[in-house]
Amino acid sequence: MASSDLEIAPSAALRTQYRDIRQFSEMLCQTLQREDFVIQSMPDVSPTRWHLAHTTWFFETFLLKPNLPDYQSPNANFEYLFNSYYNTVGKQYPRSKRGLLSRPTVDEVFAYRREVDARMLEFLDSAAAGRISPPQNWVEIVELGLHHEQQHQELMLTDIKHVLSCNPLYPVFAARQDVPNATKAATPLSWTDHAQGVYEIGDATPGFAFDNERPRHRVLVERYGIARRLTTNGEIMEFIADGGYRRPEHWLSAGWATVQEQGWEAPLYWLERDGIWMQFTLSGLRPVETDEPVCHVSYYEADAYARWQGHRLPTEAEWEIIAVDSDDDRTAMAQGNFADSGHYHPLAASPSALSQRPKQLFGDVWEWTSSSYAAYPGYRPADGALGEYNGKFMCNQYVLRGGSCATPAGHVRATYRNFFPPDARWQFSGIRLARDV
Amino acid sequence: MASSDLEIAPSAALRTQYRDIRQFSEMLCQTLQREDFVIQSMPDVSPTRWHLAHTTWFFETFLLKPNLPDYQSPNANFEYLFNSYYNTVGKQYPRSKRGLLSRPTVDEVFAYRREVDARMLEFLDSAAAGRISPPQNWVEIVELGLHHEQQHQELMLTDIKHVLSCNPLYPVFAARQDVPNATKAATPLSWTDHAQGVYEIGDATPGFAFDNERPRHRVLVERYGIARRLTTNGEIMEFIADGGYRRPEHWLSAGWATVQEQGWEAPLYWLERDGIWMQFTLSGLRPVETDEPVCHVSYYEADAYARWQGHRLPTEAEWEIIAVDSDDDRTAMAQGNFADSGHYHPLAASPSALSQRPKQLFGDVWEWTSSSYAAYPGYRPADGALGEYNGKFMCNQYVLRGGSCATPAGHVRATYRNFFPPDARWQFSGIRLARDV
Amino acid sequence: MASSDLEIAPSAALRTQYRDIRQFSEMLCQTLQREDFVIQSMPDVSPTRWHLAHTTWFFETFLLKPNLPDYQSPNANFEYLFNSYYNTVGKQYPRSKRGLLSRPTVDEVFAYRREVDARMLEFLDSAAAGRISPPQNWVEIVELGLHHEQQHQELMLTDIKHVLSCNPLYPVFAARQDVPNATKAATPLSWTDHAQGVYEIGDATPGFAFDNERPRHRVLVERYGIARRLTTNGEIMEFIADGGYRRPEHWLSAGWATVQEQGWEAPLYWLERDGIWMQFTLSGLRPVETDEPVCHVSYYEADAYARWQGHRLPTEAEWEIIAVDSDDDRTAMAQGNFADSGHYHPLAASPSALSQRPKQLFGDVWEWTSSSYAAYPGYRPADGALGEYNGKFMCNQYVLRGGSCATPAGHVRATYRNFFPPDARWQFSGIRLARDV
Amino acid sequence: MASSDLEIAPSAALRTQYRDIRQFSEMLCQTLQREDFVIQSMPDVSPTRWHLAHTTWFFETFLLKPNLPDYQSPNANFEYLFNSYYNTVGKQYPRSKRGLLSRPTVDEVFAYRREVDARMLEFLDSAAAGRISPPQNWVEIVELGLHHEQQHQELMLTDIKHVLSCNPLYPVFAARQDVPNATKAATPLSWTDHAQGVYEIGDATPGFAFDNERPRHRVLVERYGIARRLTTNGEIMEFIADGGYRRPEHWLSAGWATVQEQGWEAPLYWLERDGIWMQFTLSGLRPVETDEPVCHVSYYEADAYARWQGHRLPTEAEWEIIAVDSDDDRTAMAQGNFADSGHYHPLAASPSALSQRPKQLFGDVWEWTSSSYAAYPGYRPADGALGEYNGKFMCNQYVLRGGSCATPAGHVRATYRNFFPPDARWQFSGIRLARDV
Repeated sequence: MASSDLEIAPSAALRTQYRDIRQFSEMLCQTLQREDFVIQSMPDVSPTRWHLAHTTWFFETFLLKPNLPDYQSPNANFEYLFNSYYNTVGKQYPRSKRGLLSRPTVDEVFAYRREVDARMLEFLDSAAAGRISPPQNWVEIVELGLHHEQQHQELMLTDIKHVLSCNPLYPVFAARQDVPNATKAATPLSWTDHAQGVYEIGDATPGFAFDNERPRHRVLVERYGIARRLTTNGEIMEFIADGGYRRPEHWLSAGWATVQEQGWEAPLYWLERDGIWMQFTLSGLRPVETDEPVCHVSYYEADAYARWQGHRLPTEAEWEIIAVDSDDDRTAMAQGNFADSGHYHPLAASPSALSQRPKQLFGDVWEWTSSSYAAYPGYRPADGALGEYNGKFMCNQYVLRGGSCATPAGHVRATYRNFFPPDARWQFSGIRLARDV
Repeated sequence: MASSDLEIAPSAALRTQYRDIRQFSEMLCQTLQREDFVIQSMPDVSPTRWHLAHTTWFFETFLLKPNLPDYQSPNANFEYLFNSYYNTVGKQYPRSKRGLLSRPTVDEVFAYRREVDARMLEFLDSAAAGRISPPQNWVEIVELGLHHEQQHQELMLTDIKHVLSCNPLYPVFAARQDVPNATKAATPLSWTDHAQGVYEIGDATPGFAFDNERPRHRVLVERYGIARRLTTNGEIMEFIADGGYRRPEHWLSAGWATVQEQGWEAPLYWLERDGIWMQFTLSGLRPVETDEPVCHVSYYEADAYARWQGHRLPTEAEWEIIAVDSDDDRTAMAQGNFADSGHYHPLAASPSALSQRPKQLFGDVWEWTSSSYAAYPGYRPADGALGEYNGKFMCNQYVLRGGSCATPAGHVRATYRNFFPPDARWQFSGIRLARDV
Repeated sequence: MASSDLEIAPSAALRTQYRDIRQFSEMLCQTLQREDFVIQSMPDVSPTRWHLAHTTWFFETFLLKPNLPDYQSPNANFEYLFNSYYNTVGKQYPRSKRGLLSRPTVDEVFAYRREVDARMLEFLDSAAAGRISPPQNWVEIVELGLHHEQQHQELMLTDIKHVLSCNPLYPVFAARQDVPNATKAATPLSWTDHAQGVYEIGDATPGFAFDNERPRHRVLVERYGIARRLTTNGEIMEFIADGGYRRPEHWLSAGWATVQEQGWEAPLYWLERDGIWMQFTLSGLRPVETDEPVCHVSYYEADAYARWQGHRLPTEAEWEIIAVDSDDDRTAMAQGNFADSGHYHPLAASPSALSQRPKQLFGDVWEWTSSSYAAYPGYRPADGALGEYNGKFMCNQYVLRGGSCATPAGHVRATYRNFFPPDARWQFSGIRLARDV
Repeated sequence: MASSDLEIAPSAALRTQYRDIRQFSEMLCQTLQREDFVIQSMPDVSPTRWHLAHTTWFFETFLLKPNLPDYQSPNANFEYLFNSYYNTVGKQYPRSKRGLLSRPTVDEVFAYRREVDARMLEFLDSAAAGRISPPQNWVEIVELGLHHEQQHQELMLTDIKHVLSCNPLYPVFAARQDVPNATKAATPLSWTDHAQGVYEIGDATPGFAFDNERPRHRVLVERYGIARRLTTNGEIMEFIADGGYRRPEHWLSAGWATVQEQGWEAPLYWLERDGIWMQFTLSGLRPVETDEPVCHVSYYEADAYARWQGHRLPTEAEWEIIAVDSDDDRTAMAQGNFADSGHYHPLAASPSALSQRPKQLFGDVWEWTSSSYAAYPGYRPADGALGEYNGKFMCNQYVLRGGSCATPAGHVRATYRNFFPPDARWQFSGIRLARDV
């Protein structure tokens, strides 16, 4: 969100933004059956019910309870049930057991949302009008709550995809849409060329950004190039056909151990039927298309594929420099195939081969970088419970950039840092190659 | 079911029985929310959805498919999804993953039941009228299907109790009913005295019995006595207060290992709040009452308690001899506090202290015996898939007798053999002591 | 040991017996390297070092410490390090970590043995001469200690076999001996025929027996037959060739789960090389010989094989009745291929086909029975720590009878009850079939 | 090793170096009993036997087999038994099972070493004299083998410490030596101040360095300071006393999970006895001394302690810049308390408070940096099996710098990069703080 909007009419803009984002969460549930909301198919996945309640708990905990003296939670147990990992707030119902809960029911969770929404709008109005005196940074906390909800919107999509994929009936979440100008032939791979230099990365705008995007700081980067499009399914099929998943020499040691333990033979959601690679999508089971970007690969697979190609993954600085470069106007929203398109699946790069700009930087799939997730120089997490948001996860994870087809439009920026452990595959994560020049 | 009924009007009686038993399964779901049907809280537990579908699959697989040529399952995947453990029928969806499935939905499962019920009634009529020629033992297979459904009715109750117990909101499954003549003082313990001799146990009636109850055979039993009532909560509290769960000398070696690994300090569903023992019941959380039979104890706990008392558990032969003895008429239905009473919880023994008969033999709680679950001499399982019903489980399990407050009335007999591993606690299982005389 | 000896000259006989048995333990170590004594290849296995020390600890704990006031253990930590499972004595070093200890060294353990042996002989002399006043049952405790040591002699052999089998160098423990009259053609299978009746089983002699063999009691047995020889490797090869390890219908449910989890395809220590079945023996790797008894099979395999043959395993009562029957003189020592023969491997049945007596009842391999290990009616364990010897293991184990080629001669009797969990394979355990007649 | 030596008389220098380093490995075994060589106390630990054989296998595999046509290994199985992780060479005996092997015995392993040493000296002479034609980089491979052996010398010490620590007898590996000028009062903490700038790090000398130290490259570093001495035991005691191990707010999320799962309450090898902190050292159990550097802490603990202090860990670039700075002559050997001192334990910083140079940079303890272990820009692993040495481990590990009291003198450099997962504690790893200025 551009900060200028807030300066003009912060209350009205925030109100609208609050309502829109909260509604989008509920819109994503339209095709679900009651039974779908309950299931946790692995510890990393949370039930849809839980996402809807936890994002609500966030507003309740960090805004309503401290600032509206008469606020009463519908149920005192919600603090325990819907706290994710904020030790400062209190104990948490064990993460791996979220799928054991059927109550509060889906209807009760929606009622909880309505109750909190009503009080939040009251809070926004009262705070804007000066009738109450919340802490100085209350607007930032509201914005954080909204970006937090958007992050869980993406998780709602990735998690329900995992849930439905466990079912041999392969339920359809959303009917497949037509893609204009669809092509089956991937654009040939070409490369950018960037000069060495000391660049600045990270956020220094007055608008919203997560603490892990800050502070803006200098980085030294040597000359490099980056692939002008994402790696495709067809390219991964060549890797598979060359024995890529059976030859240890391409893999990190920990990656090879994972390949063997998990029996990986292809990206997640791929299965072979009568000699044809099929993949489970949010529109059901269908053949893998060679020109689409590969998706649901781990860092290990991304790294092994790049090594097999004789290339490498970009660092997050290399990615960010090019993403800012491709962006005429830093205040404009990143454009791409985001969740709002309703595809919920990455699209093939458009065939306009003449363009020199890298394609698919935003949306489609998160792009693994070679950068371990770490604090920027001078990084300081917030005080109190909100300081638990990002910093404590800076270990054994790798940075991904650019958002995906499950990311809500408007959520990501060139400076945005996503992060997952190197074996995670259930996110819409893919590959963009880089190389030394 | 008494066989005489079938001889008179088998078709009408079977029809009625079929409809009644099938309806009872659905009646047990009346208070559940859609979300409750989906959850598998541990590998031993199955979701209610699954029980409803699996019992239906049983009729479909063993009666409709082989005998109604035009029968088509609503979904070809149901064979895989709802097969429990019949390797002869085909592969099974993994047992421990039943909680990952939200489809078919509850509505679709009920529709599946209605479809199968309609065709089953058609089958019963056609077979009785001789319009089709099912195998000679078709009535036995129908009866087996109905007793199978009753077994799953009990599991529906024990499983939903476990599911709801995981929820800190402690949902109520059924409101608590008044108990006439309730008393808080347990009847003092007294003992029967049985002569040594060669007895016969096992079933030899023409009516329905499971294959594991047969053949009827001779057993040699030495003189013994059996407690005239079940062990109570109050007695277990004395065991706990004496350090029973902390002193290895009372326990089997495997039991003591389990106590330490699992951190057992009391029966399942007990928890201490402000110095008071509470227990989760299907009517919610409430104080443990001292005169009620103890429930949800493992074989290990039953054995340790008996050892602490200087007594022992009865053998299954000792139990059966006395149960037949207490039963004036072997063809009469066993009387007791069964699921049909709606208590879903064991009741204190009635205070009519004058009676010389053992009380609570049927209903209330399953009674652990010291007998390892094994084949009776001359036992032969059925041919084909139905032969997988009982025999293959005859290893590392112990026999329980008498039914519980979760068993449908009419389901159990004096010869009925239930069986569970020695660490199982989520069934309504309790203790009746025995001793050498 | 025959009790009559003790009546004549208890002290001298006990002294001799003590020395002989203690020396046999050390004789079994003659071919070992220092490094071999240290290794624990799985939790069930103990290092040779540990067996040598633990059996010594037994005498120290139950005889020297209580009865010789000036006795000092070489190291106060030995009580903790070498206690196996006697909770009454105190805490134990964790069983699964016995392979983490290199000290006391092998030399120090042998010194510990010499020290305890010297004091034990002093104790035996003083007690016999009445110079000290040990408890009345001191002779029984000495005898228990000696039988305990013999049990560990068997474990030393089974455990070092497992240890050496993990080594791709397949070290030889003892050179293979010639077998007189060896034949490659197994005797054809024939059966005994036993009348039904009430028999007595269990021990009631004045000589030594473990508490679990008592009390002698009546059992009712129906007419039955038992195979006159053990099941052979050749017969198991037929089972394997018929897909025995791949077809669930032959297996107990828990057995089939184990087959799949462990990837069993043949008995333990078998491996296929160039299409030939080889087996690791204490004399190294050599081809499986078809006429030898099959060995290192679990209860699950024994039961599955019997089921495949259309037969069953004997109960322990059936086995004991026939074993006593085959024994002219109950006070004579059981004859067979025991550890003292130095073969450390079962031998083919002798070809004297005319004999009507069952062969190989004692020695060669322990014979799985279908009897769950349970207390005999009226069983009472000893008071105090020695009461932990047998009773607390009476759960989820099955009885084996007859001793093996790793059992010291003189250790077993017709009433002797060995027991292991149904998945145990590292003992010299085999199969004798039974059938209803 | 300085490359200039090799230029003058490469053969003689290499010969001497080969003999010295190989002998040092055997010197480290002088106090061990045969039994000690065999034990693997956790998967990360290897038995001493294995280290001695594996380092020998390295020379055999990469030098003797390819270059001496008549070379025959003493045993063809050694290739399988003593390969650690070189997939290019062939299959490996499972790492976690190295403690299951007692053969080849210790004597046989020493004989293997003697055989390989004799042939290696022959190889060195022949190659130097031009009588054979090994690949051009043969000197580098010999040097790699020697540095490889030194790495395993350190592991021999850390691993035997872990092995002996599991034994309640707490065996002594080496008698404690007197420390001149020992003090119990730690030097007060002071800080350096370094200017921001673009520095070069990494190796570019002609001498030996591991591939992961290359290429030398530019890094941009902002102004920072580094603690002039290591964090002491006394400082960690303050952290413990302040509830450091019980308060999640200091910890990375993965670190806090590990603290809870593992029950960490203090550094590894610490235990409380009668209210006093004791620690197991290679000289046995003794009280923790407050002025000594803390040792055997994980990255998680190092990070949590730094966070609690309001500081942070240095990056590896920050560390290297200061280490080079402290080093008058880059070709001189790093000075410090290394394994050759025979202390096998870190020493307190010397009290010469006037010095402005950071102390204890080399030796004593490895210093955790905040840098995830990753490839330097332009890094290329070697071709073939030796390319598996470093690169494939660049994931989920953190860099440590400076060597320890278990590192052989002469092995480390300012550019040397060690790496371990963030939960590893059995190395001599400690803490040096850094801060932004």
